[in-house]
Amino acid sequence: MEPRVIRKVVDELCADKSTSEISFRTNFNSPMPSVKELIEAVSLLRSALLPGYFGTADQEPVDQHFYIGSVLEKASKKLKQQVLSGYCFFCETPQQCESCAHKSSGVMEKFVQTLPTIRHLLATDAMAAYEGDPAARSAGEAIFCYPSIKALVNHRIAHELYKLGVPLIPRIISELAHSETGIDIHPGAQIGERFFMDHGTGIVIGETSVIGKNVRLYQGVTLGAKSFPLDANGKPIKGIARHPIVEDDVIIYAGATILGRITIGKGAVVGGNKWVTDPVPAGNKVV
Amino acid sequence: MEPRVIRKVVDELCADKSTSEISFRTNFNSPMPSVKELIEAVSLLRSALLPGYFGTADQEPVDQHFYIGSVLEKASKKLKQQVLSGYCFFCETPQQCESCAHKSSGVMEKFVQTLPTIRHLLATDAMAAYEGDPAARSAGEAIFCYPSIKALVNHRIAHELYKLGVPLIPRIISELAHSETGIDIHPGAQIGERFFMDHGTGIVIGETSVIGKNVRLYQGVTLGAKSFPLDANGKPIKGIARHPIVEDDVIIYAGATILGRITIGKGAVVGGNKWVTDPVPAGNKVV
Amino acid sequence: MEPRVIRKVVDELCADKSTSEISFRTNFNSPMPSVKELIEAVSLLRSALLPGYFGTADQEPVDQHFYIGSVLEKASKKLKQQVLSGYCFFCETPQQCESCAHKSSGVMEKFVQTLPTIRHLLATDAMAAYEGDPAARSAGEAIFCYPSIKALVNHRIAHELYKLGVPLIPRIISELAHSETGIDIHPGAQIGERFFMDHGTGIVIGETSVIGKNVRLYQGVTLGAKSFPLDANGKPIKGIARHPIVEDDVIIYAGATILGRITIGKGAVVGGNKWVTDPVPAGNKVV
Amino acid sequence: MEPRVIRKVVDELCADKSTSEISFRTNFNSPMPSVKELIEAVSLLRSALLPGYFGTADQEPVDQHFYIGSVLEKASKKLKQQVLSGYCFFCETPQQCESCAHKSSGVMEKFVQTLPTIRHLLATDAMAAYEGDPAARSAGEAIFCYPSIKALVNHRIAHELYKLGVPLIPRIISELAHSETGIDIHPGAQIGERFFMDHGTGIVIGETSVIGKNVRLYQGVTLGAKSFPLDANGKPIKGIARHPIVEDDVIIYAGATILGRITIGKGAVVGGNKWVTDPVPAGNKVV
Amino acid sequence: MEPRVIRKVVDELCADKSTSEISFRTNFNSPMPSVKELIEAVSLLRSALLPGYFGTADQEPVDQHFYIGSVLEKASKKLKQQVLSGYCFFCETPQQCESCAHKSSGVMEKFVQTLPTIRHLLATDAMAAYEGDPAARSAGEAIFCYPSIKALVNHRIAHELYKLGVPLIPRIISELAHSETGIDIHPGAQIGERFFMDHGTGIVIGETSVIGKNVRLYQGVTLGAKSFPLDANGKPIKGIARHPIVEDDVIIYAGATILGRITIGKGAVVGGNKWVTDPVPAGNKVV
Amino acid sequence: MEPRVIRKVVDELCADKSTSEISFRTNFNSPMPSVKELIEAVSLLRSALLPGYFGTADQEPVDQHFYIGSVLEKASKKLKQQVLSGYCFFCETPQQCESCAHKSSGVMEKFVQTLPTIRHLLATDAMAAYEGDPAARSAGEAIFCYPSIKALVNHRIAHELYKLGVPLIPRIISELAHSETGIDIHPGAQIGERFFMDHGTGIVIGETSVIGKNVRLYQGVTLGAKSFPLDANGKPIKGIARHPIVEDDVIIYAGATILGRITIGKGAVVGGNKWVTDPVPAGNKVV
Repeated sequence: MEPRVIRKVVDELCADKSTSEISFRTNFNSPMPSVKELIEAVSLLRSALLPGYFGTADQEPVDQHFYIGSVLEKASKKLKQQVLSGYCFFCETPQQCESCAHKSSGVMEKFVQTLPTIRHLLATDAMAAYEGDPAARSAGEAIFCYPSIKALVNHRIAHELYKLGVPLIPRIISELAHSETGIDIHPGAQIGERFFMDHGTGIVIGETSVIGKNVRLYQGVTLGAKSFPLDANGKPIKGIARHPIVEDDVIIYAGATILGRITIGKGAVVGGNKWVTDPVPAGNKVV
Repeated sequence: MEPRVIRKVVDELCADKSTSEISFRTNFNSPMPSVKELIEAVSLLRSALLPGYFGTADQEPVDQHFYIGSVLEKASKKLKQQVLSGYCFFCETPQQCESCAHKSSGVMEKFVQTLPTIRHLLATDAMAAYEGDPAARSAGEAIFCYPSIKALVNHRIAHELYKLGVPLIPRIISELAHSETGIDIHPGAQIGERFFMDHGTGIVIGETSVIGKNVRLYQGVTLGAKSFPLDANGKPIKGIARHPIVEDDVIIYAGATILGRITIGKGAVVGGNKWVTDPVPAGNKVV
Repeated sequence: MEPRVIRKVVDELCADKSTSEISFRTNFNSPMPSVKELIEAVSLLRSALLPGYFGTADQEPVDQHFYIGSVLEKASKKLKQQVLSGYCFFCETPQQCESCAHKSSGVMEKFVQTLPTIRHLLATDAMAAYEGDPAARSAGEAIFCYPSIKALVNHRIAHELYKLGVPLIPRIISELAHSETGIDIHPGAQIGERFFMDHGTGIVIGETSVIGKNVRLYQGVTLGAKSFPLDANGKPIKGIARHPIVEDDVIIYAGATILGRITIGKGAVVGGNKWVTDPVPAGNKVV
Repeated sequence: MEPRVIRKVVDELCADKSTSEISFRTNFNSPMPSVKELIEAVSLLRSALLPGYFGTADQEPVDQHFYIGSVLEKASKKLKQQVLSGYCFFCETPQQCESCAHKSSGVMEKFVQTLPTIRHLLATDAMAAYEGDPAARSAGEAIFCYPSIKALVNHRIAHELYKLGVPLIPRIISELAHSETGIDIHPGAQIGERFFMDHGTGIVIGETSVIGKNVRLYQGVTLGAKSFPLDANGKPIKGIARHPIVEDDVIIYAGATILGRITIGKGAVVGGNKWVTDPVPAGNKVV
Repeated sequence: MEPRVIRKVVDELCADKSTSEISFRTNFNSPMPSVKELIEAVSLLRSALLPGYFGTADQEPVDQHFYIGSVLEKASKKLKQQVLSGYCFFCETPQQCESCAHKSSGVMEKFVQTLPTIRHLLATDAMAAYEGDPAARSAGEAIFCYPSIKALVNHRIAHELYKLGVPLIPRIISELAHSETGIDIHPGAQIGERFFMDHGTGIVIGETSVIGKNVRLYQGVTLGAKSFPLDANGKPIKGIARHPIVEDDVIIYAGATILGRITIGKGAVVGGNKWVTDPVPAGNKVV
Repeated sequence: MEPRVIRKVVDELCADKSTSEISFRTNFNSPMPSVKELIEAVSLLRSALLPGYFGTADQEPVDQHFYIGSVLEKASKKLKQQVLSGYCFFCETPQQCESCAHKSSGVMEKFVQTLPTIRHLLATDAMAAYEGDPAARSAGEAIFCYPSIKALVNHRIAHELYKLGVPLIPRIISELAHSETGIDIHPGAQIGERFFMDHGTGIVIGETSVIGKNVRLYQGVTLGAKSFPLDANGKPIKGIARHPIVEDDVIIYAGATILGRITIGKGAVVGGNKWVTDPVPAGNKVV
């Protein structure tokens, strides 16, 4: 290539006119989150949550405490660093980073204490997968290779971080599972125990969704917003409850779309490809 | 983080109460399957099946026998190890592992002999992709970069292992393709030659599906079960034929859902987003 | 395994009968494109297009010129090699490779000059994502972790290469994004500024689609061909305009399918799961 | 290259005539030791022996027990596998491998119990390095970057394995340090506390050497055999004490060569480049 | 292994009695230097110093400024981090780290300005190697594969850092070359232009050595201290000039040992294996 | 760091004045040899020469032909590329590269045919190591972990390339072994069968040395040049026979230095640290 050409392109890309177009960060001097580190942190957490399935290369360790303890230490260290970079991403003043560091430490201390509960929920999810899929031979198989569990490991971690107010990082953790499974669960969504998504590809669960216990979804189901109000400047108003409430024991078949802050009552069934924008009473079938 | 906090969490995660919730394996002393090894084994098999497209870094080897032979040796060794860990995953008694080892060896010897047939089928699939997609410039292009072929390489390998009775491993191989392509084919599905899935994302093909020759599916098509019978304990009965039979020359357009053990007759066409639970006679169009 | 068995399989796989079935390349002596190298080239280009978000490990470099310049040099070198292998893949005579090399150099010189425009388009896409998703906290967040932007980085690069006549490589770049995001945009599709795909999984945008400014699609939307004419030999005729034209400010909700060379007029809205094969006048709503 | 040429070479290399020349193993069906695994095992043991200097990437772990425990588990697992392959290397009958496995387990249990003592010795070695080298600023610096300590970490590990009767593996561990430091200590050599080798390159310490406390050697010193008796077949008789005994507080300067089963008495000093084959009484200087 | 055994060993290794023996650092909360990062930093600096030989994978970059600039930025960032950890290693109070950070920045700014001079010296060293070795075909060959140049790249970098007062890091950089080449040059040694060490293995050059221009050493040469004075506590007094001064145009043959603060005069020649503790007048031969 | 500072340094390093100082190559547009590729090529060749010890991860392959064949293909491809870059390094005109490519192909075809002989020589070297070292338990142990064999694998490969006239590459292969073992054998040296170097560190064997059968050297032995004549410009005249001839059955003990084109006669013994510049008649002892 002609040196002249590449120099011209470099000059254009370094000109203020061009760089200002992508200046959407407040502070370019703090490090960006590292997707690679987050993948490793989630993978370590998964090993601590589901030992015997992940992480222990060959067989059970002699002493679980050593194994779980060291895995948790590594995971916490990595995750804390990423949580910090999440805070810094939105931090208005470069000087605030002491405050960001403080917030990160506090968050991590609370987060690790939720792990026993996360494991309990995942154990119920595995049972639900086994009981909900005639092709499954055991709940252990579901833990090891079902996209539903993969997505829920990430979601249940991301959701705890979301509740603790961590910015950006929960979303990245969700997108990692989205990319791997085709299941897009916003970290804000509240999901009860024994949740199963069969096949999973194309499922979308919005930020303010509330899902009860023992719910089953099939591929391509959307729990979405019907519309969202704009503010005076035409920008969407953030944070309004706008996604469905799905009560216990509901089944929603492939491709159904449920939109808006409506309630699908306990034990209801929504048929495949249905378009639902009105509440469904408990026990009803939409077919 | 306070040492006290992390120690408390470790103790909780190591307590019997918590670990017993996830004890879904019979034998935690045998190694788990390695996803990384399986990815490499499938990649090596792909190089042996489709040399000239994959695996030979630069150009044709001087002597194909050396190349194919050494690739097959490596692939067999890796796959056999994984097949063994698949058997061990469900093995009731730790002492049975000699039996598991024996089964793995027997399976591998049969499996490698199916490779020439698998290559033949993939060659017809590539032709079908080329002829079914106006955007394709050659069947070679389809082999190298179409998700349809990627999914079928994994499926046709996984299906042979499934027929030989290997547990768990075929499912993992299928999920690897599912994750990469968004196409979810259960390893039990029987698929004839010249099969093409355009775009592919969201396609689901259930365990007992039977697909003839020269069939074409578009994105988002489901070949699913309408329902599944439960046993006296409310658990699904495993192994019942419950997915569609799709005969030769059928085309099913995007988003169509075919449910239950019904037959879509030879040459039939099912339109996009259709919901089909009744048989479709040969040559008919559902639009 | 019995040596006899593996030798028999190797002989079968090396026999002309079997190898001829997969001989879809004109020239097996030129190297295949390397997916790994293409991933790195695209990743480097992304760092040059969106510095401050990708590639600069820790913080802003002292001098952007050094950083952008060296990243572009590396990216160009890698991409040129791949473009060359793309030309060789379809090159009829082995002797033509001098011509392939010449074409590759010419293409690269033109391609790098489109980068400032690509950056501008991506900046508008990020704004559109931020304004179109109540869950987004900033356009920077969208750049870093939204599948829509990920898919558009690859598409806008692939589209320029497609316009320059590069074979195979644009398609691979598109499939990389397809695999990661579930969004399948053919490199031929023309897409205007401020484009946003919410959730994204299952979106399909065909080769001859034309999309205006400020268009928003939701998951599972198809812009497809209704049918394609076959030539005298029953093979599809390549290169005919067969996908929709979507004008400025159109919104298409989840799961809608738009087929054929029809126009969706400026400001029109297409409701979820709709099946559209007729033109939609400007400002109309299909619900 | 001409296919004919490479095939001829392969045939020659696979012919019995050629392969029989290198058949120095009793059992080619057991795996060879893995140098890579041994490097990792030694590196893990070093982290457990000298935490705070090696292995803990960033800073002290919250709880040393978790860290040391998990590092030891990993190191033991890797080392046991290698010890096993060491036994198999010399195992006469392929059936003996159960016995080899049993021996490996027994050895590992004894070996790990020597680690606290090994650490103590290394701590004294570090102090000796600090006090013996005017260029050293602290004993911590010696631990982190002096070849003397590097060689002694490997030697003190290898020596314990040697004493437990492990074949081959101790030698490989010694050669790893030899390659890195130019210091060649046979694993059989007995070395007391506070040992320091300044610069180190070219030092050779033979199998049956016995070194007391507080000894200092400089580069190029040899503690070697004067000669070794041959058996009736002209082969060297193995296992005879043939190297020097060096008592406490001895200093041997650069390039000195001490040969045979002689004693260098307590506090003696041997000058540079000296050739010594007779005993040196305590307190004497050879200059 | 019995869990009881490993727990006992872990307890012993974590007991104060054992850990206190290796507590030679003032501050275990700051990160240790990373040998891996230092290797990369030196490798990057080498690419900037000797472009066309190292670092530029394939061929000359279009624009050297981009290449050198980006390599220097990366090298500086890595090296600065390591220099910081060098200061922290000896830092008395954990609070001083702001001061350490300040010192590191200052040092780096001065260090990079010495690079043009370092390149000049290395260019003269390469010419000296070419002219001093009948087996060399060009000075370029010496740059690319002679241990003499490898050791001098590291030394000339380490020496500048040593002069700037950086602790620990220069020594590690020297040990890296020592390990690779068997040449042990203390970073404090002052070495003039056109320096050549033939073969190199076993050469030792002490901290306070001063070497003029156009000096040639062969393998196994030592420039060492004759003795070093101890303080009242019996510890060596640090920092006294105790190694030889070697003037311009001197040649010292293999295995010679020069000890103490003596001067080897201009143009002198010292024969192989000589033991020299008295000054050698200019032009004299010691044989 | 101040941007101004780094820019100034970059400008200085890119200025003609500085770059011209290191312009010792004729053609900066051809790629440099890759040390990493050479390491892999030598490692592959070693696996083909000594299968059962190196390269076959776990156990013997089912069919040696597949294994050896594919290893040789890979090794040849890599080595040919490096040989090419060796020729290009000294190639006067950029246009000559067709000629360089031609030479590389010719060389490789001849080189691979020497491999059976190289294996034979290495087998005798292993026996010599076993018989010459009381600490060795088998010739297999020597093959797997003795520096002598490591150095001879590299030397015997490098020597064949040297004889075929390949520039630069043989020297790099020798330096790789030099770095790992401290043994520096110039690729030009002729070495007969059953050669053993005990310990090895510091051994130097010059370019024109000729060594007979069954010779044994100890650490620190030099076979060097006494002096070398200069041409009219004061540059050393290349290619003159200037190193010793060592006949069959000679033993040379540690640290001995033999200089000049003298002959050490059959069965002679040279004692440790001896300085020899006169011929030694057959059967004599120098002590």
